[in-house]
Amino acid sequence: MSASAEPRANVLLFGGGAVGAIAALNIETGGLGAVTAVLRSNFQVVRDTGYTIESVDHGSLKGWRPTKGEQLSLSLLVNTVPDVSKENLPPFDYIVTTTKNCPDIPPTLPELIRPAVTPGHTTIVMIQNGLNIERAMFEAFPTNVVLSGVSMIDSHEGQLGEILHEEKDVLHLGAFQNPTLDDHEREIALAHNFIQIYGAGGKTDVRFSEDVPWARWRKLVFNAVLNPLCAITGLDDARIRLTDSLVEGLVRPAMKEIIDTAAKLGHILPADISDTMIHLDPMDLYLKPSMQCDIEKASEAPCGNFMEFEYLLGEPLREARKVGVATPNLNVLYEICKALQWKIKEQKGLVKVPPKRIL
Amino acid sequence: MSASAEPRANVLLFGGGAVGAIAALNIETGGLGAVTAVLRSNFQVVRDTGYTIESVDHGSLKGWRPTKGEQLSLSLLVNTVPDVSKENLPPFDYIVTTTKNCPDIPPTLPELIRPAVTPGHTTIVMIQNGLNIERAMFEAFPTNVVLSGVSMIDSHEGQLGEILHEEKDVLHLGAFQNPTLDDHEREIALAHNFIQIYGAGGKTDVRFSEDVPWARWRKLVFNAVLNPLCAITGLDDARIRLTDSLVEGLVRPAMKEIIDTAAKLGHILPADISDTMIHLDPMDLYLKPSMQCDIEKASEAPCGNFMEFEYLLGEPLREARKVGVATPNLNVLYEICKALQWKIKEQKGLVKVPPKRIL
Repeated sequence: MSASAEPRANVLLFGGGAVGAIAALNIETGGLGAVTAVLRSNFQVVRDTGYTIESVDHGSLKGWRPTKGEQLSLSLLVNTVPDVSKENLPPFDYIVTTTKNCPDIPPTLPELIRPAVTPGHTTIVMIQNGLNIERAMFEAFPTNVVLSGVSMIDSHEGQLGEILHEEKDVLHLGAFQNPTLDDHEREIALAHNFIQIYGAGGKTDVRFSEDVPWARWRKLVFNAVLNPLCAITGLDDARIRLTDSLVEGLVRPAMKEIIDTAAKLGHILPADISDTMIHLDPMDLYLKPSMQCDIEKASEAPCGNFMEFEYLLGEPLREARKVGVATPNLNVLYEICKALQWKIKEQKGLVKVPPKRIL
Repeated sequence: MSASAEPRANVLLFGGGAVGAIAALNIETGGLGAVTAVLRSNFQVVRDTGYTIESVDHGSLKGWRPTKGEQLSLSLLVNTVPDVSKENLPPFDYIVTTTKNCPDIPPTLPELIRPAVTPGHTTIVMIQNGLNIERAMFEAFPTNVVLSGVSMIDSHEGQLGEILHEEKDVLHLGAFQNPTLDDHEREIALAHNFIQIYGAGGKTDVRFSEDVPWARWRKLVFNAVLNPLCAITGLDDARIRLTDSLVEGLVRPAMKEIIDTAAKLGHILPADISDTMIHLDPMDLYLKPSMQCDIEKASEAPCGNFMEFEYLLGEPLREARKVGVATPNLNVLYEICKALQWKIKEQKGLVKVPPKRIL
């Protein structure tokens, strides 16, 4: 499929880390979208020397940057979200969000992207994890379509601007249902349109996701359990399996709480989903899930991240409570995550404790 | 009370860290006991320059060492447990154990002290935390009396051999009941005798503990909950209280599991015990409980410690299961502690993981 006849979609990428850089690369490779990337921690490096990418899909790239959208007066890489109304810019057709998403740490994601959203026009594509992430977006932008991207990707940013993408990934792309719009056909059409843009280069696997909640609950089996547990223990997801008893003593019982909640809500996950998720990553790569990376980087201000445990763990827990599924294991993981997030806040100077007594 | 007329008790101290050094000082100050101290990590420092002690009870001491027991041919500080039969030494009247006590990490405490124990004679004084610690001792030494010391002390070893003892302490000293001996009167008499030796200097508060299990369960309210939680989160026990929700969300519910188990076993703790334990330490000292210190020191081999979570958390948990008290919060803390202990083992080279794949 050639893109030369039609104008390229005007895409804003919000978050140019490991997931975002590969997303930009997929869109640019297909030729159907022109990406403006809003970068933060790696802005200067990527502006000066471009990305260094080692990708199982795209090969070795040095100095790669998104091409500038032809109609845009913007620089292709920016470090603040462009204000389309003030700067009199053409509207963005898509905003792809690939940042961490922490509703407990202001400013929230909708507040951050608001200047670039054209009401009634811009489609927001959330390639982000967790449950109920669309709710704040619908509240902020009641007339916009919001798409769901569940990315099964193993991509890491080592040094700033250096992306290592080691295993073939899959993006499950579907449409959230915006209750204000009440036009799911249009939402689904836009999902298919974005899939075309994203997959046109033929180098990545992007699939339409019929059942978005199901896809999200499925990934939560990993993300609500192993992700926080690796952050809490400081053990990567291979080492979790190497300990004597953690898988049977805590991982499986906690995963069962997610599976039971999903089932109660009508999302029946495969019988072997726990095993699938426990063994998702190869043993011999000793991969660290995102929250473990975040807490390890937290002390390296300003590049460190907060943990997005509220959407990965807090929301499924609250859904479980609503439908009456007991979650004794998830409860404790959640309380500990809250404490660790508080610790990250203190490390970043967002909370201050009274001085220590001098003896 | 003067000790000059009677021979001083021959005391072996096993473990000369923060608690042991103050114990030795108390015994020596009273003049009723002569202490031989088995030191390990700080042996060389204390042999060469003595302890540096800053104590609320004893003042500032520089270069302090236990005096040599008159009848002993031993050096007063040793770095291995003396073998009384092989070396033809006079028997020890008391062995005071103040080390960490980790049944999951061989060699176990009874194995370690065995060469110094004279069957039927030596009284073993366990100034150590946790539940059921006497069982392994009775199994190893069925003809010996074992005493219980529950020490409420805030004493820390900063640099090796440097002891900071900041708050007045209390030692609750009682007698375990050895089922083989079946002579609790003698056990109690020996407890009182040791209290005399320990308190003769008049500088410390040592009290007879009528009800040893009660005293141990009482301290477990702190040690089974806040101690592991500080180790897990890396937050000291003041910061735990400063977080938004950890006390109500996890600390109190977990403490209630200990209190309920104790009650079911007939040990009724005061109604305000949770509050007492939550506010045990002054806020403005930001004190770290022992397991938090242990895990922080774990990477500093060979001085770092393992966490004594089995007697502090594992045993009360197993007792709860036996009597049918649900422990959903303690379960998770326990599983995480097992994983952290595994991590310490890996740091110390006691477990090896397969090599990482080179990409």
